[in-house]
Amino acid sequence: MADCQEDTACKLTAMQLYEKLTLQGDQVRALKSEKAAKPEIDAAVQLLLKLKVCYKKSTGQDYKAGCPPNDDVSQSNNGPVTEDGDDQVDPWNVSTTSAKGVDYDKLIVRFGSSKIDQELIDRISRVTGQTPHRFLRRGVFFSHRDMHQVLDAFENKKSFFLYTGRGPSSEAMHVGHLIPFIFTKWLQDVFNVPLVIQLTDDEKYLWKDLSQEQCYRFSVENAKDIIACGFDVNKTFIFSDLDYIGSSPTFYKNMLKIQKHVTFNQVKGIFGFTDSDCIGKISFPAIQAAPSFSNSFPQIFNGRADLQCLIPCAIDQDPYFRMTRDVAPRIGYPKPALLHSTFFPALQGAQTKMSASDPNSSIFLTDTPKQIKTKINKHAFSGGKDTIEEHRKYGGNPDLDVSFMYLSFFLEDDEELEKIRQDYTSGALLTGELKKRLIETLQPMIAAHQERRKHVTDDIVKQFMTPRKLEFNF
Amino acid sequence: MADCQEDTACKLTAMQLYEKLTLQGDQVRALKSEKAAKPEIDAAVQLLLKLKVCYKKSTGQDYKAGCPPNDDVSQSNNGPVTEDGDDQVDPWNVSTTSAKGVDYDKLIVRFGSSKIDQELIDRISRVTGQTPHRFLRRGVFFSHRDMHQVLDAFENKKSFFLYTGRGPSSEAMHVGHLIPFIFTKWLQDVFNVPLVIQLTDDEKYLWKDLSQEQCYRFSVENAKDIIACGFDVNKTFIFSDLDYIGSSPTFYKNMLKIQKHVTFNQVKGIFGFTDSDCIGKISFPAIQAAPSFSNSFPQIFNGRADLQCLIPCAIDQDPYFRMTRDVAPRIGYPKPALLHSTFFPALQGAQTKMSASDPNSSIFLTDTPKQIKTKINKHAFSGGKDTIEEHRKYGGNPDLDVSFMYLSFFLEDDEELEKIRQDYTSGALLTGELKKRLIETLQPMIAAHQERRKHVTDDIVKQFMTPRKLEFNF
Repeated sequence: MADCQEDTACKLTAMQLYEKLTLQGDQVRALKSEKAAKPEIDAAVQLLLKLKVCYKKSTGQDYKAGCPPNDDVSQSNNGPVTEDGDDQVDPWNVSTTSAKGVDYDKLIVRFGSSKIDQELIDRISRVTGQTPHRFLRRGVFFSHRDMHQVLDAFENKKSFFLYTGRGPSSEAMHVGHLIPFIFTKWLQDVFNVPLVIQLTDDEKYLWKDLSQEQCYRFSVENAKDIIACGFDVNKTFIFSDLDYIGSSPTFYKNMLKIQKHVTFNQVKGIFGFTDSDCIGKISFPAIQAAPSFSNSFPQIFNGRADLQCLIPCAIDQDPYFRMTRDVAPRIGYPKPALLHSTFFPALQGAQTKMSASDPNSSIFLTDTPKQIKTKINKHAFSGGKDTIEEHRKYGGNPDLDVSFMYLSFFLEDDEELEKIRQDYTSGALLTGELKKRLIETLQPMIAAHQERRKHVTDDIVKQFMTPRKLEFNF
Repeated sequence: MADCQEDTACKLTAMQLYEKLTLQGDQVRALKSEKAAKPEIDAAVQLLLKLKVCYKKSTGQDYKAGCPPNDDVSQSNNGPVTEDGDDQVDPWNVSTTSAKGVDYDKLIVRFGSSKIDQELIDRISRVTGQTPHRFLRRGVFFSHRDMHQVLDAFENKKSFFLYTGRGPSSEAMHVGHLIPFIFTKWLQDVFNVPLVIQLTDDEKYLWKDLSQEQCYRFSVENAKDIIACGFDVNKTFIFSDLDYIGSSPTFYKNMLKIQKHVTFNQVKGIFGFTDSDCIGKISFPAIQAAPSFSNSFPQIFNGRADLQCLIPCAIDQDPYFRMTRDVAPRIGYPKPALLHSTFFPALQGAQTKMSASDPNSSIFLTDTPKQIKTKINKHAFSGGKDTIEEHRKYGGNPDLDVSFMYLSFFLEDDEELEKIRQDYTSGALLTGELKKRLIETLQPMIAAHQERRKHVTDDIVKQFMTPRKLEFNF
C-alpha cells in the first residue's frame, strides 16, 4: 500500500482512499481476532488513523465503513447521485442529467484511471505498425489503466491476453453491445494474442427473474452475434459461466482465492450491495474477476499464472476491475490492464445508454433496413433546429445530435466525418440529410452482420466454447 | 409459508419466527423494488406485520433485521451467550457453563428439532430388522428432523441417500470425529443406501490461514481415516470441494440456485457473519447445502433431483441444514432429513467438545497405547471423590465423569455399562478402575483403526474420490 504523506497533498482520489480504508479496517479487525502480536496490531492501527486523516482532508467527511464518499454510485443505485452534476455510472445503472452525455473527463478523475491521449494512441500505432482504430481516434475508447505497461511488455516480447465479456440478459443485442467486441477483434488482429470471452449467465440468473436454462440459452445465442464480429476460432475461447465453472477446478480455485480476500464492506462500497441482497450477488464479483488471471484457463496458458491481461470494456464495468486490481497483488497475480469505452447513446439522447430492455432506445442486430430507417427518422434525438430556416441560419449542434454521435462510431473516414460535422454546424447539412447518411451507413453494416451470423452454425459455436489449447504456445 | 394464527399460541420457536421474518422482509423489499402490483405488495406487508406481532408475543422484543433473538448464537460468536444458562452451539463454537455438558433437551426446543424417542428407535429397528445401534440406545444420536418421513418412504420402497461430511482443518483427527462416521456406516449397512461424504477444504481455506494445497492435502489424509471406518467403496462417494466443484456443472448450478434464494440478512442471523467477513465465507453455506440435493451427483443418481436425503451430523451443524430446509421448497427440491449427535466431550470435561486444535482435550487416532493410557489417567476429568474413603462412602458421579461418558460411546454391552454405572455411583468401582476399563476399551479400538488405515492405499482413496456410478440404479 502506497505511503500516505500527511504533509503533502494526497494524490489518491476520495474513492481510492475509501477503498484503502475499508481494506485497512478489515485488516485491523482480522489481526485483533487472530490475536496477532501487539506491534503488528499497533502498526496497522497507525496506518488506519493516517488514512482517516487523509480521507477527512480529501472529502471533508469522516470515514465511515460501508458509506462511500458522497459522489459515488452506491448511495443511489436507483437514480442519479445526490451531488450536483455528478453522473451515475455503475454496472447496473448509467445516467446523467446532461444531454451531451456523461462527462468522461470528470469520470477519469473520479475513477482514478488515465486518459488515452495522443501519445498513447501514437505508441499503439508504432508498436503494432497499424493505423489506430477509429475508436481510438474518435475517443470512443478514451480511458485506460496500465496500457503503457502492456506495451512495454509487448515490446520486450512478453505476451499478454485479452479478456472481455457480456452479460447475456436476453437474446436481443443492439449495436451498442458490439462496440467492445469490434474493438477487441481489432486488438486481437493487430497484437495477435489469445482472447477469452466470458458470458455471465450466472450473473443474469442471480439478478433477473430467469431460469438457469434461459440464461444459458441467451449465452449461446449471444455467442453467435459475438462470433459474427469475426473472431479467429484458433485464438478465441468463449465460455458460459454456468458451463465452464463446473468444468474447471482452477477457475473455481481462483474464484475462492479472490473471495477470501474481498470483504462484504468492500463490495458494499464498490457495488452498493445491501444486507437484503442474496449471497450469490454478494460473491459474484469474484467470478467476473477470475478470468483476469491466466491460470483460470490452464489449457490455453499451459497452467501459467503470470501472464499480463488486458481488458477492453465499457467504463461502467470498471468497478469490477478496480476490485480485481486491488486484490491481485495480495494473491500473487499481476494486475489486469484496462481499456475503457464510452457508452453508446440511446436513440432518445445521450443522457442514457442504449438498452435492450428499452426497445425504443435501441437499434437491434435483428432490425430490418426498414426498422433501422424508421427508428432513426422517428426516434433519433436531433441536434438540429426546429425549422429549415432556423437550421440554415444557426446550424445544428453535433454534440447533442445522436445521429452524428452514431456516425462518429461507425463512419471510418475521418475527413468525411469532419466535413459532415462542419456542414451540420454551419447549417449546410440538414437533420434529415444527416439521418439519411447514418441510415445508409447502418443498414449495410447490420445486414452484413446478419449475413455473417447466419453462417455461424451450432458446430462453430461449440468449437469456440470448447475448453482447448489455442494456436499459441506458453 | 405456514399461516400464523394470531389468536392461538404460536407453535414456531423464536428462531423460526425470526428466520421467517427475515425472509418476508426481504420479499417485501424485492417486490417494492421490482415495482410489483400493489395488491401483491400489500399482501406481503400484511404477512410481515402478522409475523412481527407473533414475534413480539413470543420473545417480548421487537423484531429487528440482522439481530436474532437473544438466546441465539450470532450475538456472541466468541464466547457463551448473554442469557443466563444458555449454551453456545454453532458450527465454530461449542461451549457451556455446565460441567454436565450442553443441555440437549433445551437445545431441541431452541432449534425446533424433535427428540429421537423410544418409539422412533423401535421403528428404526423394525424397519431394518436390526438391533438399534448403541448410539441410538445411549442417546448419542438424540435429535432428528423428518426421520419418520424417511422411514415412511423407505417402507414404500422409496429409497434415500446419506450425506455427511468433515471440515479437514488438519491431519489430526480424534475419536470424537469418528462418531458421525461410525453411525453413518451403520446406517449405510442396515438401510443399504448410497452415501456422499463432503470434505469442505474450501471452507477451511476461507476460515483459516492455510493454502488451498494444504487444505486439499488434509482432505486426502482425512479421507483415509474415514475410509478406515469401513465404508463400502461401491456405495460411497467421498469428495473434496476444491476438486469436485470445478468438475461438476450441476453441483455449481445448485450452489448458485441456493445462493440466489438466501440473503445476507439470513446468513447473518443464522451464522453471525458481519460486514467485515470475506464474501467467500458469506456464500459458503450454500456449498454445504448443495450435497443435500441428489442432482448434485448426476453420475450416482442418474440426474434425478427428487431423492430424499438423510444427514447424520453433530448438532452444531444444524444451522446449515435449517437454512437448507428453508430454501429447498423454494427451489423445488425435497428437504433433507437429519439425525443429530451430541458432542464428544473434551478430556477436561463436558463444558467443551473435544478439539484437534487443543491436543490436551483429545485422544487422536494416531495416539499410541501409551499415550491413550497417559491422557486418560492424567487428563480425563473425574466424577469421583478426592479420596478412596470418600468415594467408597459417597460414590462417584457418572454424569460428570468423562471416562464414563466415553465408555457410553464405545462400550457395546448395555448390561455391562449399566453395571459400571451402578458400581461407580455406589462407590464400589473406583475412578482408577473406571479409567482402566476405558483404556482397555480404547486401546484395541484405536489400534484396530490404525491397522485398517494402513491398508488404505492411495489407489483406494482415489477410487472412493472418483465421481462414478455406484452399485445402485436410479
